Amino acid sequence: MTTSRVKKSKSVTLGLIQMKCSADPDANMAKAVSAIGQAVKRDAQIICLQELFRSVYFCDEEDRTHFKLAEKIPGASTAVFQQIAKTRKVVIIAPLFEKRAQGIFHNTAVVIDADGTILGKYRKMHIPDDPGYYEKFYFTPGDLGFSAYDTRYGRVGVCICWDQWFPEAARLTALQGAQIIFYPTAIGWNVDEKPSVNVAQHSAWETVQRSHAIANGIFVAAVNRVGREADQKFWGQSFVADPSGRVIARASAEKEEILYVDCDLAKIDEIREHWPFLRDRRIDAYGDLTKRFIDKR
Amino acid sequence: MTTSRVKKSKSVTLGLIQMKCSADPDANMAKAVSAIGQAVKRDAQIICLQELFRSVYFCDEEDRTHFKLAEKIPGASTAVFQQIAKTRKVVIIAPLFEKRAQGIFHNTAVVIDADGTILGKYRKMHIPDDPGYYEKFYFTPGDLGFSAYDTRYGRVGVCICWDQWFPEAARLTALQGAQIIFYPTAIGWNVDEKPSVNVAQHSAWETVQRSHAIANGIFVAAVNRVGREADQKFWGQSFVADPSGRVIARASAEKEEILYVDCDLAKIDEIREHWPFLRDRRIDAYGDLTKRFIDKR
Repeated sequence: MTTSRVKKSKSVTLGLIQMKCSADPDANMAKAVSAIGQAVKRDAQIICLQELFRSVYFCDEEDRTHFKLAEKIPGASTAVFQQIAKTRKVVIIAPLFEKRAQGIFHNTAVVIDADGTILGKYRKMHIPDDPGYYEKFYFTPGDLGFSAYDTRYGRVGVCICWDQWFPEAARLTALQGAQIIFYPTAIGWNVDEKPSVNVAQHSAWETVQRSHAIANGIFVAAVNRVGREADQKFWGQSFVADPSGRVIARASAEKEEILYVDCDLAKIDEIREHWPFLRDRRIDAYGDLTKRFIDKR
Repeated sequence: MTTSRVKKSKSVTLGLIQMKCSADPDANMAKAVSAIGQAVKRDAQIICLQELFRSVYFCDEEDRTHFKLAEKIPGASTAVFQQIAKTRKVVIIAPLFEKRAQGIFHNTAVVIDADGTILGKYRKMHIPDDPGYYEKFYFTPGDLGFSAYDTRYGRVGVCICWDQWFPEAARLTALQGAQIIFYPTAIGWNVDEKPSVNVAQHSAWETVQRSHAIANGIFVAAVNRVGREADQKFWGQSFVADPSGRVIARASAEKEEILYVDCDLAKIDEIREHWPFLRDRRIDAYGDLTKRFIDKR
Protein backbone atom coordinates (compact mmCIF):
# COMPACT_ATOMS: atom_id res chain seq x y z
CA MET A 1 0.00 0.00 0.00
CA THR A 2 1.09 3.54 -0.65
CA THR A 3 1.04 6.00 2.20
CA SER A 4 0.61 9.68 2.72
CA ARG A 5 1.00 11.81 5.79
CA VAL A 6 0.00 15.22 7.14
CA LYS A 7 2.27 16.31 10.02
CA LYS A 8 1.26 18.44 12.98
CA SER A 9 2.49 18.92 16.50
CA LYS A 10 0.66 18.06 19.78
CA SER A 11 -1.63 15.64 18.07
CA VAL A 12 -3.08 12.18 17.94
CA THR A 13 -2.13 10.26 14.81
CA LEU A 14 -4.90 8.50 12.94
CA GLY A 15 -4.32 5.62 10.57
CA LEU A 16 -7.21 5.16 8.14
CA ILE A 17 -7.04 1.92 6.18
CA GLN A 18 -8.59 2.20 2.73
CA MET A 19 -8.53 -1.19 1.02
CA LYS A 20 -9.88 -3.39 -1.74
CA CYS A 21 -11.65 -6.55 -0.65
CA SER A 22 -11.81 -10.00 -2.20
CA ALA A 23 -14.36 -12.80 -1.94
CA ASP A 24 -12.22 -14.50 0.72
CA PRO A 25 -12.94 -13.15 4.23
CA ASP A 26 -9.77 -14.66 5.64
CA ALA A 27 -7.68 -12.93 3.01
CA ASN A 28 -9.39 -9.60 3.81
CA MET A 29 -8.75 -10.15 7.51
CA ALA A 30 -5.10 -10.95 6.85
CA LYS A 31 -4.77 -7.81 4.74
CA ALA A 32 -6.34 -5.69 7.47
CA VAL A 33 -4.08 -7.16 10.13
CA SER A 34 -1.04 -6.55 7.94
CA ALA A 35 -2.12 -2.94 7.32
CA ILE A 36 -2.60 -2.37 11.04
CA GLY A 37 0.92 -3.67 11.62
CA GLN A 38 2.23 -1.24 9.04
CA ALA A 39 0.27 1.63 10.58
CA VAL A 40 1.61 0.83 14.05
CA LYS A 41 5.16 1.03 12.72
CA ARG A 42 4.35 4.50 11.42
CA ASP A 43 3.12 5.50 14.89
CA ALA A 44 -0.59 5.56 14.19
CA GLN A 45 -2.47 5.68 17.50
CA ILE A 46 -6.09 5.30 16.44
CA ILE A 47 -6.58 2.93 13.53
CA CYS A 48 -9.89 2.64 11.72
CA LEU A 49 -10.92 0.06 9.14
CA GLN A 50 -13.59 0.52 6.50
CA GLU A 51 -17.21 -0.68 6.75
CA LEU A 52 -17.63 -4.48 6.40
CA PHE A 53 -13.92 -4.83 5.58
CA ARG A 54 -14.02 -8.61 6.07
CA SER A 55 -16.00 -9.20 2.87
CA VAL A 56 -16.96 -7.78 -0.45
CA TYR A 57 -19.87 -5.38 -0.19
CA PHE A 58 -22.48 -8.15 -0.42
CA CYS A 59 -25.48 -5.81 -0.08
CA ASP A 60 -25.54 -5.28 -3.84
CA GLU A 61 -27.93 -8.25 -3.89
CA GLU A 62 -30.44 -9.86 -1.53
CA ASP A 63 -29.08 -13.35 -0.86
CA ARG A 64 -29.63 -15.12 2.46
CA THR A 65 -26.44 -17.11 2.07
CA HIS A 66 -24.52 -13.93 2.94
CA PHE A 67 -25.79 -14.17 6.50
CA LYS A 68 -23.10 -16.80 7.06
CA LEU A 69 -20.56 -13.96 6.89
CA ALA A 70 -21.86 -12.59 10.17
CA GLU A 71 -20.10 -13.22 13.47
CA LYS A 72 -20.56 -12.80 17.18
CA ILE A 73 -19.21 -9.74 19.01
CA PRO A 74 -17.08 -10.39 20.96
CA GLY A 75 -15.88 -13.20 18.72
CA ALA A 76 -13.11 -14.38 16.48
CA SER A 77 -12.35 -11.02 14.85
CA THR A 78 -12.49 -8.96 18.00
CA ALA A 79 -10.14 -11.44 19.72
CA VAL A 80 -7.54 -10.82 17.02
CA PHE A 81 -7.90 -7.04 17.24
CA GLN A 82 -7.93 -6.99 21.02
CA GLN A 83 -4.63 -8.84 21.06
CA ILE A 84 -3.07 -6.40 18.58
CA ALA A 85 -4.48 -3.38 20.42
CA LYS A 86 -3.06 -4.59 23.73
CA THR A 87 0.38 -5.58 22.50
CA ARG A 88 0.87 -2.62 20.17
CA LYS A 89 -0.89 -0.07 22.39
CA VAL A 90 -3.19 1.20 19.65
CA VAL A 91 -6.89 1.95 19.51
CA ILE A 92 -8.65 -0.06 16.80
CA ILE A 93 -12.07 0.68 15.32
CA ALA A 94 -13.27 -2.47 13.61
CA PRO A 95 -16.50 -2.53 11.58
CA LEU A 96 -18.03 -6.03 11.59
CA PHE A 97 -21.13 -7.84 10.39
CA GLU A 98 -22.66 -8.78 13.73
CA LYS A 99 -24.83 -11.83 14.38
CA ARG A 100 -26.61 -10.78 17.54
CA ALA A 101 -29.10 -13.65 17.64
CA GLN A 102 -30.64 -16.10 15.21
CA GLY A 103 -32.17 -13.86 12.56
CA ILE A 104 -30.97 -10.57 14.09
CA PHE A 105 -28.00 -9.01 12.35
CA HIS A 106 -26.40 -5.57 12.66
CA ASN A 107 -23.88 -3.48 10.76
CA THR A 108 -21.63 -2.75 13.72
CA ALA A 109 -18.34 -1.12 14.67
CA VAL A 110 -16.35 -2.12 17.74
CA VAL A 111 -14.13 0.34 19.58
CA ILE A 112 -11.13 -1.36 21.20
CA ASP A 113 -8.90 0.64 23.54
CA ALA A 114 -5.10 0.56 23.55
CA ASP A 115 -5.13 -1.98 26.40
CA GLY A 116 -7.28 -4.42 24.42
CA THR A 117 -10.54 -3.61 26.22
CA ILE A 118 -13.70 -3.43 24.16
CA LEU A 119 -15.06 0.00 25.10
CA GLY A 120 -18.32 -0.49 23.28
CA LYS A 121 -19.97 -1.11 19.99
CA TYR A 122 -21.98 1.08 17.71
CA ARG A 123 -24.77 -0.48 15.65
CA LYS A 124 -25.55 1.45 12.47
CA MET A 125 -28.68 3.46 13.14
CA HIS A 126 -29.62 4.66 9.64
CA ILE A 127 -29.98 1.80 7.18
CA PRO A 128 -30.11 2.55 3.43
CA ASP A 129 -32.07 0.78 0.76
CA ASP A 130 -31.19 1.82 -2.73
CA PRO A 131 -30.48 -0.14 -5.91
CA GLY A 132 -27.12 -1.81 -5.24
CA TYR A 133 -27.30 -1.02 -1.52
CA TYR A 134 -30.00 -3.37 -0.18
CA GLU A 135 -29.02 -3.02 3.45
CA LYS A 136 -32.51 -3.09 4.92
CA PHE A 137 -32.63 -6.76 3.89
CA TYR A 138 -29.62 -7.64 6.01
CA PHE A 139 -29.33 -5.24 8.89
CA THR A 140 -31.68 -4.64 11.80
CA PRO A 141 -31.51 -0.93 12.62
CA GLY A 142 -29.26 -0.22 15.60
CA ASP A 143 -30.86 0.06 19.03
CA LEU A 144 -27.92 1.42 21.01
CA GLY A 145 -28.20 5.03 19.85
CA PHE A 146 -25.19 7.28 19.40
CA SER A 147 -22.17 7.14 21.69
CA ALA A 148 -18.66 8.36 22.38
CA TYR A 149 -15.84 6.43 24.00
CA ASP A 150 -12.87 7.51 26.08
CA THR A 151 -9.88 5.91 24.43
CA ARG A 152 -6.30 6.36 25.55
CA TYR A 153 -5.74 8.86 22.75
CA GLY A 154 -8.96 10.86 22.76
CA ARG A 155 -12.73 10.62 23.06
CA VAL A 156 -14.10 9.21 19.82
CA GLY A 157 -17.45 8.44 18.25
CA VAL A 158 -18.32 6.13 15.38
CA CYS A 159 -21.10 6.34 12.86
CA ILE A 160 -21.32 4.19 9.75
CA CYS A 161 -21.77 5.16 6.09
CA TRP A 162 -25.46 6.16 5.53
CA ASP A 163 -25.37 7.83 8.98
CA GLN A 164 -23.11 10.44 7.41
CA TRP A 165 -26.04 12.08 5.64
CA PHE A 166 -27.87 12.79 8.92
CA PRO A 167 -26.81 15.88 10.89
CA GLU A 168 -28.67 14.47 13.89
CA ALA A 169 -26.24 11.54 14.14
CA ALA A 170 -23.19 13.77 14.15
CA ARG A 171 -24.75 16.20 16.62
CA LEU A 172 -25.77 13.51 19.10
CA THR A 173 -22.30 11.98 18.91
CA ALA A 174 -20.60 15.35 19.36
CA LEU A 175 -22.87 16.27 22.28
CA GLN A 176 -21.42 13.25 24.07
CA GLY A 177 -18.01 14.80 23.85
CA ALA A 178 -16.62 13.01 20.81
CA GLN A 179 -13.53 14.83 19.53
CA ILE A 180 -13.30 12.77 16.37
CA ILE A 181 -16.17 11.05 14.59
CA PHE A 182 -15.10 8.12 12.45
CA TYR A 183 -17.27 7.13 9.48
CA PRO A 184 -16.34 3.66 8.17
CA THR A 185 -17.96 3.63 4.74
CA ALA A 186 -18.63 1.67 1.55
CA ILE A 187 -19.77 4.09 -1.10
CA GLY A 188 -19.12 4.12 -4.80
CA TRP A 189 -20.22 4.96 -8.28
CA ASN A 190 -22.24 2.65 -10.46
CA VAL A 191 -19.97 1.78 -13.37
CA ASP A 192 -22.65 2.88 -15.86
CA GLU A 193 -23.29 6.27 -14.29
CA LYS A 194 -22.41 9.55 -15.99
CA PRO A 195 -19.17 11.18 -14.77
CA SER A 196 -21.00 14.42 -13.97
CA VAL A 197 -23.36 12.56 -11.63
CA ASN A 198 -20.39 10.86 -10.01
CA VAL A 199 -18.66 14.15 -9.37
CA ALA A 200 -21.83 15.64 -7.86
CA GLN A 201 -22.35 12.63 -5.58
CA HIS A 202 -18.80 12.66 -4.31
CA SER A 203 -18.97 16.39 -3.70
CA ALA A 204 -22.19 16.04 -1.72
CA TRP A 205 -20.69 13.19 0.32
CA GLU A 206 -17.61 15.14 1.29
CA THR A 207 -19.56 18.39 1.80
CA VAL A 208 -22.09 16.96 4.20
CA GLN A 209 -19.36 15.40 6.35
CA ARG A 210 -17.31 18.59 6.32
CA SER A 211 -20.44 20.32 7.56
CA HIS A 212 -20.60 17.98 10.56
CA ALA A 213 -17.06 19.05 11.43
CA ILE A 214 -18.05 22.72 11.10
CA ALA A 215 -21.40 22.60 12.91
CA ASN A 216 -19.93 20.65 15.83
CA GLY A 217 -16.35 21.87 15.96
CA ILE A 218 -14.90 18.36 15.72
CA PHE A 219 -12.64 16.26 13.54
CA VAL A 220 -14.38 13.98 11.04
CA ALA A 221 -12.58 10.96 9.58
CA ALA A 222 -14.19 9.06 6.71
CA VAL A 223 -12.71 5.67 5.82
CA ASN A 224 -13.98 4.37 2.51
CA ARG A 225 -13.57 1.19 0.48
CA VAL A 226 -11.81 1.32 -2.88
CA GLY A 227 -11.79 -0.82 -6.02
CA ARG A 228 -14.40 -2.37 -8.28
CA GLU A 229 -16.86 -5.01 -7.07
CA ALA A 230 -19.65 -6.16 -9.43
CA ASP A 231 -21.25 -2.96 -10.80
CA GLN A 232 -19.79 -0.62 -8.18
CA LYS A 233 -16.55 1.27 -8.27
CA PHE A 234 -15.94 2.28 -4.66
CA TRP A 235 -14.55 5.78 -4.70
CA GLY A 236 -11.98 5.67 -1.90
CA GLN A 237 -11.02 9.27 -1.11
CA SER A 238 -11.00 8.64 2.61
CA PHE A 239 -10.41 11.98 4.26
CA VAL A 240 -10.13 13.94 7.47
CA ALA A 241 -11.76 17.34 8.02
CA ASP A 242 -10.57 19.54 10.86
CA PRO A 243 -13.00 21.40 13.18
CA SER A 244 -13.21 24.30 10.73
CA GLY A 245 -14.30 21.87 8.00
CA ARG A 246 -11.05 22.05 6.07
CA VAL A 247 -9.99 18.78 4.43
CA ILE A 248 -6.50 18.23 5.87
CA ALA A 249 -5.85 14.87 4.20
CA ARG A 250 -7.48 12.90 1.40
CA ALA A 251 -6.62 9.50 -0.05
CA SER A 252 -6.80 8.62 -3.74
CA ALA A 253 -9.89 7.40 -5.60
CA GLU A 254 -8.13 4.35 -7.03
CA LYS A 255 -5.53 2.92 -4.70
CA GLU A 256 -5.29 1.01 -1.46
CA GLU A 257 -3.76 3.41 1.01
CA ILE A 258 -3.15 4.07 4.68
CA LEU A 259 -3.91 7.69 5.39
CA TYR A 260 -1.92 9.01 8.35
CA VAL A 261 -3.28 12.22 9.83
CA ASP A 262 -2.06 14.06 12.89
CA CYS A 263 -5.02 15.76 14.57
CA ASP A 264 -4.35 18.47 17.13
CA LEU A 265 -7.22 18.07 19.58
CA ALA A 266 -6.56 21.55 21.03
CA LYS A 267 -7.88 22.85 17.71
CA ILE A 268 -11.35 21.92 19.01
CA ASP A 269 -11.01 24.45 21.84
CA GLU A 270 -9.78 27.10 19.45
CA ILE A 271 -12.54 26.63 16.89
CA ARG A 272 -15.38 26.25 19.39
CA GLU A 273 -14.25 29.39 21.23
CA HIS A 274 -14.21 31.31 17.94
CA TRP A 275 -17.39 29.74 16.53
CA PRO A 276 -19.52 29.08 19.63
CA PHE A 277 -22.36 27.23 17.96
CA LEU A 278 -22.80 24.86 20.88
CA ARG A 279 -23.34 27.91 23.12
CA ASP A 280 -26.23 29.18 21.05
CA ARG A 281 -28.30 26.10 20.18
CA ARG A 282 -32.02 26.77 20.81
CA ILE A 283 -32.70 23.57 22.71
CA ASP A 284 -36.06 24.98 23.80
CA ALA A 285 -37.17 24.96 20.15
CA TYR A 286 -35.85 21.63 18.84
CA GLY A 287 -38.53 19.28 20.13
CA ASP A 288 -40.09 18.70 16.73
CA LEU A 289 -36.89 17.08 15.46
CA THR A 290 -38.43 13.84 16.69
CA LYS A 291 -41.23 14.19 14.13
CA ARG A 292 -41.18 12.54 10.73
CA PHE A 293 -42.72 15.59 9.06
CA ILE A 294 -44.56 18.59 10.42
CA ASP A 295 -47.84 18.79 8.61
CA LYS A 296 -49.24 22.19 7.73
CA ARG A 297 -50.62 24.18 10.58
CA MET B 1 -26.19 47.11 -10.30
CA THR B 2 -24.79 44.37 -12.47
CA THR B 3 -26.86 41.25 -12.97
CA SER B 4 -26.28 37.60 -13.65
CA ARG B 5 -28.69 34.83 -14.47
CA VAL B 6 -28.93 31.03 -14.48
CA LYS B 7 -31.71 29.80 -16.80
CA LYS B 8 -33.80 26.67 -16.33
CA SER B 9 -37.20 25.50 -17.45
CA LYS B 10 -40.28 24.88 -15.23
CA SER B 11 -38.97 26.97 -12.44
CA VAL B 12 -39.56 29.77 -10.02
CA THR B 13 -37.26 32.71 -10.53
CA LEU B 14 -35.55 34.12 -7.48
CA GLY B 15 -34.16 37.64 -7.30
CA LEU B 16 -31.56 37.99 -4.55
CA ILE B 17 -30.58 41.58 -3.85
CA GLN B 18 -26.99 41.95 -2.64
CA MET B 19 -26.28 45.58 -1.79
CA LYS B 20 -24.05 48.05 0.00
CA CYS B 21 -25.69 50.13 2.69
CA SER B 22 -25.11 53.70 3.81
CA ALA B 23 -25.78 55.51 7.08
CA ASP B 24 -29.06 56.84 5.68
CA PRO B 25 -31.93 54.37 6.18
CA ASP B 26 -34.13 56.20 3.68
CA ALA B 27 -31.44 55.95 1.02
CA ASN B 28 -31.08 52.23 1.70
CA MET B 29 -34.84 51.77 1.46
CA ALA B 30 -34.93 53.69 -1.82
CA LYS B 31 -32.12 51.54 -3.19
CA ALA B 32 -33.93 48.36 -2.17
CA VAL B 33 -37.19 49.52 -3.75
CA SER B 34 -35.35 50.41 -6.93
CA ALA B 35 -33.65 47.02 -7.02
CA ILE B 36 -36.98 45.27 -6.52
CA GLY B 37 -38.37 47.23 -9.46
CA GLN B 38 -35.44 46.14 -11.58
CA ALA B 39 -35.87 42.52 -10.47
CA VAL B 40 -39.56 42.58 -11.33
CA LYS B 41 -38.76 43.72 -14.84
CA ARG B 42 -36.47 40.73 -15.19
CA ASP B 43 -39.33 38.43 -14.11
CA ALA B 44 -38.14 37.61 -10.62
CA GLN B 45 -41.00 36.02 -8.70
CA ILE B 46 -39.59 35.71 -5.19
CA ILE B 47 -37.37 38.61 -4.18
CA CYS B 48 -35.27 38.52 -1.04
CA LEU B 49 -33.35 41.36 0.58
CA GLN B 50 -30.33 41.01 2.84
CA GLU B 51 -30.39 41.07 6.66
CA LEU B 52 -31.04 44.53 8.17
CA PHE B 53 -30.84 46.10 4.70
CA ARG B 54 -32.32 49.39 5.94
CA SER B 55 -29.16 50.33 7.83
CA VAL B 56 -25.46 49.76 8.15
CA TYR B 57 -24.67 46.71 10.21
CA PHE B 58 -24.84 48.60 13.49
CA CYS B 59 -24.11 45.56 15.68
CA ASP B 60 -20.37 46.17 15.39
CA GLU B 61 -20.81 48.25 18.54
CA GLU B 62 -23.13 48.35 21.54
CA ASP B 63 -24.90 51.69 21.32
CA ARG B 64 -28.45 52.20 22.56
CA THR B 65 -29.07 55.00 20.09
CA HIS B 66 -29.31 52.33 17.35
CA PHE B 67 -32.60 51.15 18.84
CA LYS B 68 -34.20 54.12 17.08
CA LEU B 69 -33.64 52.27 13.81
CA ALA B 70 -36.21 49.67 14.83
CA GLU B 71 -39.76 49.77 13.53
CA LYS B 72 -43.13 48.14 14.04
CA ILE B 73 -44.24 45.18 11.93
CA PRO B 74 -46.56 45.76 10.21
CA GLY B 75 -45.37 49.31 9.79
CA ALA B 76 -43.93 51.81 7.37
CA SER B 77 -41.57 49.42 5.57
CA THR B 78 -44.00 46.56 5.25
CA ALA B 79 -46.63 48.96 3.85
CA VAL B 80 -44.26 49.89 1.03
CA PHE B 81 -43.39 46.28 0.25
CA GLN B 82 -46.99 45.09 0.48
CA GLN B 83 -47.98 47.66 -2.10
CA ILE B 84 -45.19 46.59 -4.46
CA ALA B 85 -45.91 42.89 -3.92
CA LYS B 86 -49.59 43.39 -4.73
CA THR B 87 -49.17 45.59 -7.78
CA ARG B 88 -46.21 43.73 -9.27
CA LYS B 89 -47.42 40.24 -8.23
CA VAL B 90 -44.15 39.28 -6.56
CA VAL B 91 -43.29 37.64 -3.27
CA ILE B 92 -41.01 39.81 -1.12
CA ILE B 93 -38.91 38.65 1.82
CA ALA B 94 -37.96 41.72 3.83
CA PRO B 95 -35.59 41.52 6.82
CA LEU B 96 -36.33 44.30 9.30
CA PHE B 97 -35.24 45.49 12.74
CA GLU B 98 -38.47 44.92 14.66
CA LYS B 99 -39.60 46.93 17.66
CA ARG B 100 -42.09 44.56 19.22
CA ALA B 101 -42.62 46.48 22.45
CA GLN B 102 -40.72 49.02 24.50
CA GLY B 103 -37.38 47.34 25.15
CA ILE B 104 -38.14 44.21 23.11
CA PHE B 105 -36.48 44.10 19.70
CA HIS B 106 -36.07 41.29 17.18
CA ASN B 107 -34.04 40.62 14.06
CA THR B 108 -36.98 39.69 11.86
CA ALA B 109 -37.90 38.81 8.30
CA VAL B 110 -41.37 39.33 6.87
CA VAL B 111 -42.78 37.14 4.11
CA ILE B 112 -45.21 39.00 1.87
CA ASP B 113 -47.21 37.10 -0.74
CA ALA B 114 -47.76 38.19 -4.33
CA ASP B 115 -51.16 39.66 -3.39
CA GLY B 116 -49.63 41.89 -0.71
CA THR B 117 -50.67 39.75 2.24
CA ILE B 118 -48.21 39.34 5.10
CA LEU B 119 -48.00 35.56 5.40
CA GLY B 120 -45.93 35.66 8.55
CA LYS B 121 -42.75 36.77 10.13
CA TYR B 122 -39.69 34.90 11.26
CA ARG B 123 -37.76 36.17 14.27
CA LYS B 124 -34.10 35.15 14.26
CA MET B 125 -33.77 32.27 16.68
CA HIS B 126 -29.98 31.95 17.04
CA ILE B 127 -28.34 35.21 18.11
CA PRO B 128 -24.56 35.60 17.80
CA ASP B 129 -22.22 37.48 20.04
CA ASP B 130 -18.73 37.80 18.72
CA PRO B 131 -16.32 40.74 18.44
CA GLY B 132 -17.88 42.96 15.76
CA TYR B 133 -21.20 41.09 15.91
CA TYR B 134 -22.72 42.11 19.25
CA GLU B 135 -26.23 40.99 18.42
CA LYS B 136 -27.16 39.69 21.85
CA PHE B 137 -27.16 43.32 23.00
CA TYR B 138 -29.84 44.29 20.50
CA PHE B 139 -32.00 41.30 19.66
CA THR B 140 -34.25 39.28 21.90
CA PRO B 141 -34.06 35.68 20.67
CA GLY B 142 -37.01 34.72 18.48
CA ASP B 143 -39.98 33.02 20.09
CA LEU B 144 -41.93 31.99 17.01
CA GLY B 145 -39.83 28.95 16.13
CA PHE B 146 -39.20 27.83 12.57
CA SER B 147 -41.84 28.11 9.86
CA ALA B 148 -42.67 27.72 6.20
CA TYR B 149 -45.10 29.79 4.17
CA ASP B 150 -47.22 28.96 1.13
CA THR B 151 -46.50 31.72 -1.32
CA ARG B 152 -47.95 31.96 -4.81
CA TYR B 153 -44.68 30.65 -6.25
CA GLY B 154 -43.71 27.96 -3.77
CA ARG B 155 -43.52 27.07 -0.10
CA VAL B 156 -40.62 28.94 1.45
CA GLY B 157 -38.87 29.22 4.78
CA VAL B 158 -36.64 31.96 6.15
CA CYS B 159 -33.78 31.76 8.60
CA ILE B 160 -31.36 34.61 9.28
CA CYS B 161 -27.55 34.67 9.23
CA TRP B 162 -26.24 32.92 12.40
CA ASP B 163 -29.09 30.40 12.00
CA GLN B 164 -27.21 29.09 8.98
CA TRP B 165 -24.68 27.31 11.19
CA PHE B 166 -27.35 25.20 12.90
CA PRO B 167 -28.54 22.07 11.09
CA GLU B 168 -31.52 21.96 13.44
CA ALA B 169 -32.88 25.23 12.02
CA ALA B 170 -32.72 24.01 8.44
CA ARG B 171 -34.19 20.63 9.33
CA LEU B 172 -37.15 22.08 11.25
CA THR B 173 -37.86 24.47 8.39
CA ALA B 174 -37.62 21.71 5.78
CA LEU B 175 -39.84 19.38 7.84
CA GLN B 176 -42.56 22.00 7.46
CA GLY B 177 -42.42 21.58 3.73
CA ALA B 178 -40.20 24.49 2.77
CA GLN B 179 -38.93 24.04 -0.78
CA ILE B 180 -36.50 26.94 -0.55
CA ILE B 181 -34.86 28.27 2.59
CA PHE B 182 -33.75 31.89 2.33
CA TYR B 183 -30.89 33.09 4.52
CA PRO B 184 -30.70 36.91 4.60
CA THR B 185 -27.21 37.52 5.97
CA ALA B 186 -24.60 40.08 7.01
CA ILE B 187 -21.27 38.33 7.23
CA GLY B 188 -17.82 39.58 6.41
CA TRP B 189 -14.13 39.55 7.00
CA ASN B 190 -12.40 41.77 9.48
CA VAL B 191 -10.19 44.05 7.43
CA ASP B 192 -7.14 43.06 9.49
CA GLU B 193 -7.63 39.31 9.19
CA LYS B 194 -5.24 37.06 7.27
CA PRO B 195 -6.42 36.08 3.78
CA SER B 196 -6.05 32.38 4.59
CA VAL B 197 -8.46 32.74 7.52
CA ASN B 198 -10.88 34.62 5.29
CA VAL B 199 -10.85 31.87 2.70
CA ALA B 200 -11.43 29.21 5.36
CA GLN B 201 -14.33 31.15 6.87
CA HIS B 202 -16.04 31.71 3.57
CA SER B 203 -15.59 28.06 2.64
CA ALA B 204 -17.13 26.93 5.93
CA TRP B 205 -20.05 29.32 5.47
CA GLU B 206 -20.87 28.09 1.99
CA THR B 207 -20.22 24.44 2.92
CA VAL B 208 -22.54 24.35 5.89
CA GLN B 209 -25.38 25.88 3.87
CA ARG B 210 -24.79 23.52 0.95
CA SER B 211 -25.07 20.72 3.49
CA HIS B 212 -28.54 21.91 4.51
CA ALA B 213 -29.57 21.63 0.86
CA ILE B 214 -28.13 18.10 0.70
CA ALA B 215 -29.41 16.78 4.02
CA ASN B 216 -32.93 18.09 3.38
CA GLY B 217 -33.24 17.90 -0.41
CA ILE B 218 -34.15 21.58 -0.74
CA PHE B 219 -32.94 24.76 -2.38
CA VAL B 220 -30.93 27.11 -0.19
CA ALA B 221 -30.62 30.81 -1.08
CA ALA B 222 -28.16 32.96 0.86
CA VAL B 223 -28.44 36.74 0.42
CA ASN B 224 -25.45 38.57 1.83
CA ARG B 225 -24.42 42.18 2.29
CA VAL B 226 -21.43 43.55 0.37
CA GLY B 227 -19.02 46.44 0.82
CA ARG B 228 -16.92 47.84 3.64
CA GLU B 229 -18.45 49.23 6.86
CA ALA B 230 -16.12 50.22 9.72
CA ASP B 231 -13.73 47.27 10.21
CA GLN B 232 -15.78 44.74 8.28
CA LYS B 233 -15.65 43.92 4.61
CA PHE B 234 -18.90 42.08 3.93
CA TRP B 235 -18.10 39.28 1.55
CA GLY B 236 -21.16 39.23 -0.70
CA GLN B 237 -21.09 35.97 -2.67
CA SER B 238 -24.81 35.45 -2.29
CA PHE B 239 -25.57 32.04 -3.76
CA VAL B 240 -28.14 29.37 -4.43
CA ALA B 241 -27.53 25.66 -3.86
CA ASP B 242 -29.80 23.12 -5.50
CA PRO B 243 -31.18 20.08 -3.60
CA SER B 244 -28.03 18.09 -4.41
CA GLY B 245 -25.92 20.82 -2.79
CA ARG B 246 -24.50 22.11 -6.04
CA VAL B 247 -23.97 25.88 -6.18
CA ILE B 248 -25.98 26.91 -9.24
CA ALA B 249 -25.38 30.65 -8.95
CA ARG B 250 -23.00 32.84 -6.98
CA ALA B 251 -22.65 36.63 -6.87
CA SER B 252 -19.36 38.48 -6.63
CA ALA B 253 -17.48 39.31 -3.43
CA GLU B 254 -17.18 43.01 -4.29
CA LYS B 255 -20.17 44.33 -6.19
CA GLU B 256 -23.79 45.17 -5.66
CA GLU B 257 -25.72 42.66 -7.69
CA ILE B 258 -29.12 41.14 -8.26
CA LEU B 259 -28.71 37.40 -8.60
CA TYR B 260 -31.45 35.84 -10.72
CA VAL B 261 -31.80 32.10 -10.31
CA ASP B 262 -34.40 29.82 -11.84
CA CYS B 263 -35.13 26.96 -9.43
CA ASP B 264 -36.94 23.90 -10.75
CA LEU B 265 -38.96 22.77 -7.76
CA ALA B 266 -39.50 19.32 -9.35
CA LYS B 267 -35.81 18.78 -8.66
CA ILE B 268 -36.80 18.30 -5.02
CA ASP B 269 -38.86 15.23 -5.93
CA GLU B 270 -36.04 13.85 -8.02
CA ILE B 271 -33.35 14.30 -5.39
CA ARG B 272 -35.43 13.12 -2.45
CA GLU B 273 -36.51 10.00 -4.36
CA HIS B 274 -32.87 9.23 -5.13
CA TRP B 275 -31.48 10.23 -1.72
CA PRO B 276 -34.32 9.34 0.66
CA PHE B 277 -32.83 10.76 3.84
CA LEU B 278 -36.20 11.94 5.11
CA ARG B 279 -37.44 8.33 4.85
CA ASP B 280 -34.71 7.02 7.11
CA ARG B 281 -34.41 9.52 9.96
CA ARG B 282 -34.34 7.72 13.34
CA ILE B 283 -36.91 9.89 15.03
CA ASP B 284 -37.10 7.38 17.88
CA ALA B 285 -33.47 8.19 18.75
CA TYR B 286 -33.31 11.98 18.42
CA GLY B 287 -34.82 13.01 21.75
CA ASP B 288 -31.50 14.15 23.21
CA LEU B 289 -31.18 16.88 20.58
CA THR B 290 -33.02 19.06 23.08
CA LYS B 291 -30.08 18.76 25.49
CA ARG B 292 -27.28 21.30 25.75
CA PHE B 293 -24.66 18.58 26.22
CA ILE B 294 -24.89 14.93 27.15
CA ASP B 295 -22.65 14.40 30.11
CA LYS B 296 -20.68 11.20 30.36
CA ARG B 297 -22.68 8.13 31.26
